[in-house]
Amino acid sequence: MRDMCYYYSQLGTDERSEFLIHMATSLSTNHQAVQELIQQKPQADTNSVDLDAQLLIWEDRLRHAVQPPHHWVFSQVSRLSGGVKFLVDMRQDLLSTLFSKTLDPSNSAALKTLDSTLRELLSLWFTVGLLNVQRITWESPCNMLQKVSEYEAVHPVRNWTDLKRRVGPYRRCFIFTHSCMPKEPLVVLHIFLTNEIPDSMAKILQTSRSSSIDETSVSKDSEDPSLINTAIFYSITSTQKGLQGIELGNYLIKKVVHEMKAEFPSMSQFSTLSPIPGFVKWLNGMMARAQRGDAHIFTETEVNALQIFLEVDSSPEVYERLRKLFTTNGWIEELDVVETLEAPLMRLCAYYLFTEKRRNYTLDSVANFHLKNGAVMWRINWLADRSPRGLANSCGIMVNYRYFLEECECNSRTYLETMKVIASDTVTFLAKAAEDIIKK
Amino acid sequence: MRDMCYYYSQLGTDERSEFLIHMATSLSTNHQAVQELIQQKPQADTNSVDLDAQLLIWEDRLRHAVQPPHHWVFSQVSRLSGGVKFLVDMRQDLLSTLFSKTLDPSNSAALKTLDSTLRELLSLWFTVGLLNVQRITWESPCNMLQKVSEYEAVHPVRNWTDLKRRVGPYRRCFIFTHSCMPKEPLVVLHIFLTNEIPDSMAKILQTSRSSSIDETSVSKDSEDPSLINTAIFYSITSTQKGLQGIELGNYLIKKVVHEMKAEFPSMSQFSTLSPIPGFVKWLNGMMARAQRGDAHIFTETEVNALQIFLEVDSSPEVYERLRKLFTTNGWIEELDVVETLEAPLMRLCAYYLFTEKRRNYTLDSVANFHLKNGAVMWRINWLADRSPRGLANSCGIMVNYRYFLEECECNSRTYLETMKVIASDTVTFLAKAAEDIIKK
Amino acid sequence: MRDMCYYYSQLGTDERSEFLIHMATSLSTNHQAVQELIQQKPQADTNSVDLDAQLLIWEDRLRHAVQPPHHWVFSQVSRLSGGVKFLVDMRQDLLSTLFSKTLDPSNSAALKTLDSTLRELLSLWFTVGLLNVQRITWESPCNMLQKVSEYEAVHPVRNWTDLKRRVGPYRRCFIFTHSCMPKEPLVVLHIFLTNEIPDSMAKILQTSRSSSIDETSVSKDSEDPSLINTAIFYSITSTQKGLQGIELGNYLIKKVVHEMKAEFPSMSQFSTLSPIPGFVKWLNGMMARAQRGDAHIFTETEVNALQIFLEVDSSPEVYERLRKLFTTNGWIEELDVVETLEAPLMRLCAYYLFTEKRRNYTLDSVANFHLKNGAVMWRINWLADRSPRGLANSCGIMVNYRYFLEECECNSRTYLETMKVIASDTVTFLAKAAEDIIKK
Amino acid sequence: MRDMCYYYSQLGTDERSEFLIHMATSLSTNHQAVQELIQQKPQADTNSVDLDAQLLIWEDRLRHAVQPPHHWVFSQVSRLSGGVKFLVDMRQDLLSTLFSKTLDPSNSAALKTLDSTLRELLSLWFTVGLLNVQRITWESPCNMLQKVSEYEAVHPVRNWTDLKRRVGPYRRCFIFTHSCMPKEPLVVLHIFLTNEIPDSMAKILQTSRSSSIDETSVSKDSEDPSLINTAIFYSITSTQKGLQGIELGNYLIKKVVHEMKAEFPSMSQFSTLSPIPGFVKWLNGMMARAQRGDAHIFTETEVNALQIFLEVDSSPEVYERLRKLFTTNGWIEELDVVETLEAPLMRLCAYYLFTEKRRNYTLDSVANFHLKNGAVMWRINWLADRSPRGLANSCGIMVNYRYFLEECECNSRTYLETMKVIASDTVTFLAKAAEDIIKK
Repeated sequence: MRDMCYYYSQLGTDERSEFLIHMATSLSTNHQAVQELIQQKPQADTNSVDLDAQLLIWEDRLRHAVQPPHHWVFSQVSRLSGGVKFLVDMRQDLLSTLFSKTLDPSNSAALKTLDSTLRELLSLWFTVGLLNVQRITWESPCNMLQKVSEYEAVHPVRNWTDLKRRVGPYRRCFIFTHSCMPKEPLVVLHIFLTNEIPDSMAKILQTSRSSSIDETSVSKDSEDPSLINTAIFYSITSTQKGLQGIELGNYLIKKVVHEMKAEFPSMSQFSTLSPIPGFVKWLNGMMARAQRGDAHIFTETEVNALQIFLEVDSSPEVYERLRKLFTTNGWIEELDVVETLEAPLMRLCAYYLFTEKRRNYTLDSVANFHLKNGAVMWRINWLADRSPRGLANSCGIMVNYRYFLEECECNSRTYLETMKVIASDTVTFLAKAAEDIIKK
Repeated sequence: MRDMCYYYSQLGTDERSEFLIHMATSLSTNHQAVQELIQQKPQADTNSVDLDAQLLIWEDRLRHAVQPPHHWVFSQVSRLSGGVKFLVDMRQDLLSTLFSKTLDPSNSAALKTLDSTLRELLSLWFTVGLLNVQRITWESPCNMLQKVSEYEAVHPVRNWTDLKRRVGPYRRCFIFTHSCMPKEPLVVLHIFLTNEIPDSMAKILQTSRSSSIDETSVSKDSEDPSLINTAIFYSITSTQKGLQGIELGNYLIKKVVHEMKAEFPSMSQFSTLSPIPGFVKWLNGMMARAQRGDAHIFTETEVNALQIFLEVDSSPEVYERLRKLFTTNGWIEELDVVETLEAPLMRLCAYYLFTEKRRNYTLDSVANFHLKNGAVMWRINWLADRSPRGLANSCGIMVNYRYFLEECECNSRTYLETMKVIASDTVTFLAKAAEDIIKK
Repeated sequence: MRDMCYYYSQLGTDERSEFLIHMATSLSTNHQAVQELIQQKPQADTNSVDLDAQLLIWEDRLRHAVQPPHHWVFSQVSRLSGGVKFLVDMRQDLLSTLFSKTLDPSNSAALKTLDSTLRELLSLWFTVGLLNVQRITWESPCNMLQKVSEYEAVHPVRNWTDLKRRVGPYRRCFIFTHSCMPKEPLVVLHIFLTNEIPDSMAKILQTSRSSSIDETSVSKDSEDPSLINTAIFYSITSTQKGLQGIELGNYLIKKVVHEMKAEFPSMSQFSTLSPIPGFVKWLNGMMARAQRGDAHIFTETEVNALQIFLEVDSSPEVYERLRKLFTTNGWIEELDVVETLEAPLMRLCAYYLFTEKRRNYTLDSVANFHLKNGAVMWRINWLADRSPRGLANSCGIMVNYRYFLEECECNSRTYLETMKVIASDTVTFLAKAAEDIIKK
Repeated sequence: MRDMCYYYSQLGTDERSEFLIHMATSLSTNHQAVQELIQQKPQADTNSVDLDAQLLIWEDRLRHAVQPPHHWVFSQVSRLSGGVKFLVDMRQDLLSTLFSKTLDPSNSAALKTLDSTLRELLSLWFTVGLLNVQRITWESPCNMLQKVSEYEAVHPVRNWTDLKRRVGPYRRCFIFTHSCMPKEPLVVLHIFLTNEIPDSMAKILQTSRSSSIDETSVSKDSEDPSLINTAIFYSITSTQKGLQGIELGNYLIKKVVHEMKAEFPSMSQFSTLSPIPGFVKWLNGMMARAQRGDAHIFTETEVNALQIFLEVDSSPEVYERLRKLFTTNGWIEELDVVETLEAPLMRLCAYYLFTEKRRNYTLDSVANFHLKNGAVMWRINWLADRSPRGLANSCGIMVNYRYFLEECECNSRTYLETMKVIASDTVTFLAKAAEDIIKK
């Protein structure tokens, strides 16, 4: 088994795909055996008590028969030292094989079964009891801080000074590790401690304290607890692609909220300041439709104003021009355009977040994550993230998802069962306004 | 889920049994759903590639259908803090319900399915990667030492001085813990460091060093590595009844052998000095048969000698008398009897260990454990354990199972596949001698 | 230097004494050199600025000349690993040589100088910054708990169950260790957590919680913080005789009070329940004087009552009888005697604690320790310690010294500067009453 | 006392100097009291035994009288938490006051006494038993690695990648910390592991392994012990100016050599590759003298060759030109000059290191440090350090001091007692050659 793992680790990308396909097909369930077992099903002519017991035994055998042999292989691998980590990495290869390859349907089905087995096993191993929350500070091991820095996906770390600030006063950085791979952060969560829910990243990233906190009253290395009643989750990153679909982030948020309450008993507000990764992509689709006359997204007044500021002559040209504009970040400097766009983009963004769904979940993946956790869609913030990434993804708009501890569980259930998004009145109002125009 | 666990923990023994029966029956597989799914099996009239993919998908659905709902319940419980430990304890209740109750067949079958689910899940969680080996010394936490003392099943710890000695010089004590329950030793292993394989417990328990080591050359607190080339595993205890059937002991032995080799590079002999828990019980059975004339176990000369020393007139009376004798420990003081019994009991014990099987495994559970690990049945030792327990279980006989590192894996496979017991020539010879007499 | 230490450690008691005397005399200050240096003192005929500088340089040289060579030896020893611990142990030998030997005056003076050098050095090394407070629980290393048990001087630990209780719920046990000898407790402090200042050891030692706390409301392993507002220091032990005269206990009390306040913010009462080691010895002296008619200690009524209950005819016989009585513990069972003695003994004990002095400090060493720390002599408790030791030392009387945090520093200074004992009105009143009778 | 410390920490540089002068003068020894005590010296007319004892007591009193009151202040400060660190920092201020100020003689003498007291106390506290050696790796706390990087004085760390390399494979980094200030490295020692004594820094700094080790045989993260038999101490930095004169570096080297031997039992060579901080300064002095005709440093042939390559007409101009040349680093590119200078500079450097003394010690401070530790001056290396600093200080020359473990103690004593420098034949030969020319 150890040899097999070593052999696999030496393979290149394509060879690994072939290996996985081979494994998925050759170590798959024995159809014949299942078929035979089905024909042995105990029949009703025996007395009923006996029948029940026999049925249970038969089902037990059936259960083993439909269990594909790769299940046994995976559980053997897990017994090796480093085995669970190996399986996490193998699943990453498996997922990229599944998504990137032109597979014939039977291979694809076999790989999906393989992935399903692996995901089930991993979700058993990555259970909460085996996960450890750890706070990261400037006194944490250097290799851990290096990883925290490298994994940061939402707001990239510029240098070690930047990193030191992110684990310094008025900040908290927590990671989840697993007993099997104690030096590997699985999820990284960054928190900003302040006294109000911020409406832009600038307040979080560019100062070592919220601008609403008076500079003079703060010593360099320490925090004044009286200035802290709000925890902002401003970055949450899952680091292991091989754990996709196995929810860890929400556990981390819950555990961390607990720790924050213990450290600051007067902590009363928990919120995120989150990116909206899919807004511009969706908006471009809407503008294409609007350009073709298939949809309304702006009011007449807005279209007129945009014609003037964008110096174009017709409504289709407005959409044409805007789509070009959004491919670069220059528009942010043209104050007229920015001002004119604020109302319609905020409105459309609310619609995108609140109303647009895919397979019963919100289209936006970040929104879906927090809504599943039971958060409330609280406030949409204009020009909250002026970084290139922020402008490219969401025209700089960000959103606060707020966690009301007592209501989380109830909200979560409502969302999962009824697809209803829990949002503040402001967000709901904006989304309705957009809907009215779109449906017009 | 948490409420359910709390509720359960408040129940009495009988109520727990009822709870488990209820859980086993009401949360069992839906027979109807399985039946319907079976009837939806894709048929061969579709083209073969498609059929294959459809079969895989159908098997996937079947797999979920035969998975009993309690599987989901258990995996949810594992997500609670303390959840895995709860399941270990629950399985202990489940096993005692299964073994001690007069159950009707259908309840029994349902409970077996429940146990099977639970055992599979536990064996996934108690995988090696999540187990930690820890050395216990007199500097270990007191509560841990207290547990090591209380759990000791093979050679009970008399007091704290005794305990201190067992973790002191020329000794090693290792425990296995699980990341989920880090303060709970799952397996405890005691080792004695010496320069020859001992033939009695006295050498291990009554001195702080092997009698073969010169007292004057040893300082009180430390060891002389030049006097150490042999590690004797003289006690191995599994503490969690709820983990029955999930092998941990052999992993611990392997890891510990590794650590011993690292600490003492010249360590060349690894052996146990093990009890033989079932010998006297088996011997009584044999003597009853011999008394009825159904079996031969002693030679004529032996029977004659025993008649004299036991002061009885006939051969049946010898067996009658011996069985009475073995209910108390007094016979150990009668030197004539002891001397006369040595040869036949050693021979019969070899036969019991080497030849007697049940369901393809050796009848003796300790022998089976070490043979499965790949050890060799090395030497049988007369009057090696004069404690009441030792005399009652095995007339004081003990056995060394020796671990030859390079051959363990091969031996283990041979034993598991062919049922052949690997033993030294001496043991084999004794067993054959007994066999010849018995078959006579 | 290392050889010298090894050599010393191999010596017997008498040889060590000789070694120390040799060291004290042969490595003592060079009288001649000092004399010569004195004669080189710069004279006033040089100009004054220069003179000052020259004086300083001369004093510097004088300082080195009067520094005995053993000072250098000790500081070299301290540079060895284990050196500081060696010096602590050597000082223990030194003190016992100083106290137990019939020394001629010049050896005695030399040894005193040696001790003075050693004490000064040790008091520099055993400075607070190098001391660590550690809480001891049942999860602490076993060897540490064993030492805590063995060192307990005030209320001997009976067995491991007793020990487990003393580090369990409603208790705290703290130790001071030094960076040089991290596995050696220097001071051990036991605390009892309750809701009132107890008047007897029974409440502390015999239950796992104060009898004033309702049993039913307390779970086995944990504490109810709402029932805790009082910390009772019921045992404080200095373990290293070689550190005599170097105060560590008061630092420990201060640090521990700090930790208690942090753990229980509503903690409002800090007190001891302390033994009175010298009371009976002092009382016997007083009674001898009273018997001779040199002092009054009882009122006439008391003497009469005692004559009856002790069945003697005269006042001198009362004292005679009492002194005999106090050599055993039987009197505690004779209720009449006990009742009759309560008033006079409580009064005399107050007088002994409050009024009796030696060299400006209270005669009682425990009282002196707490008064120096700034505690208040709070309450004297009749029959608070019925153990043989308690009866033999103080007729079972114990005393509470209470620590009022804000006043400690002021009290301490008052006591050290004016010799005034700060005591409650009750204690003062009792002491005055005794004084009136004694002076009569 | 705490207030005094806080007050001091708030002062500016000049105010601190004033504070220290005030402390040195006002808390100095009471001259009058000393004088009076001297006059009370016991006289010889008492009997001799008594006299001896009286003398000891009188000396004891004298010892206290000449002890300046600031000694007491310092020992009180040490009792505060953070007190010892405060005194280390205060001594740094004191030393800079002593060295940088134009002080009148009496203030200077008083400050020297203050420093002497402080240095003695610090050398007691910074004794080996209280120092801890710690290995620093990339898994050490980030703040510690940041300090290691910032303190590096010999070969500055360029960035985090550079730092990661210096604590990575084929390297060791050790620090000394003190129990009082566990997060502050006092001494930092960098080691390079290789199989030969390197003759240039390039081999150490620019590769992750010695160029003599075959690249292909080395995996990225680990070391091949068979390629390691030599430990090169290539940087040793004392970080606390306030601990000047208190030797810690040699203890660290000794402890580390011990750890290296334990990790690599076949380690056979220990050496430094050390800078020569004062060579160019000394050389410039020599060249000035040579220019004036007061000394010979080059042979005639050398002077002639230099005239040609430096394009000057006379011998004085050679010195003039060379001194200018050495102010910049350009000459290193002129191969002719470099080649011509090698022989004379190597010779003169040997002379500087081996022969030049100040107050009985070698003039070069680094040489003095290693010679005091017992190292041998082993080999002088041409162009071993081409960094700007290396060229400016020593024309790029570096020297290996080699540690032969068995001879260190003996060498150290020889050097300290006889001033004799232990050097290899090569170094001795070079130094003699230079001496012959200089004395000519």
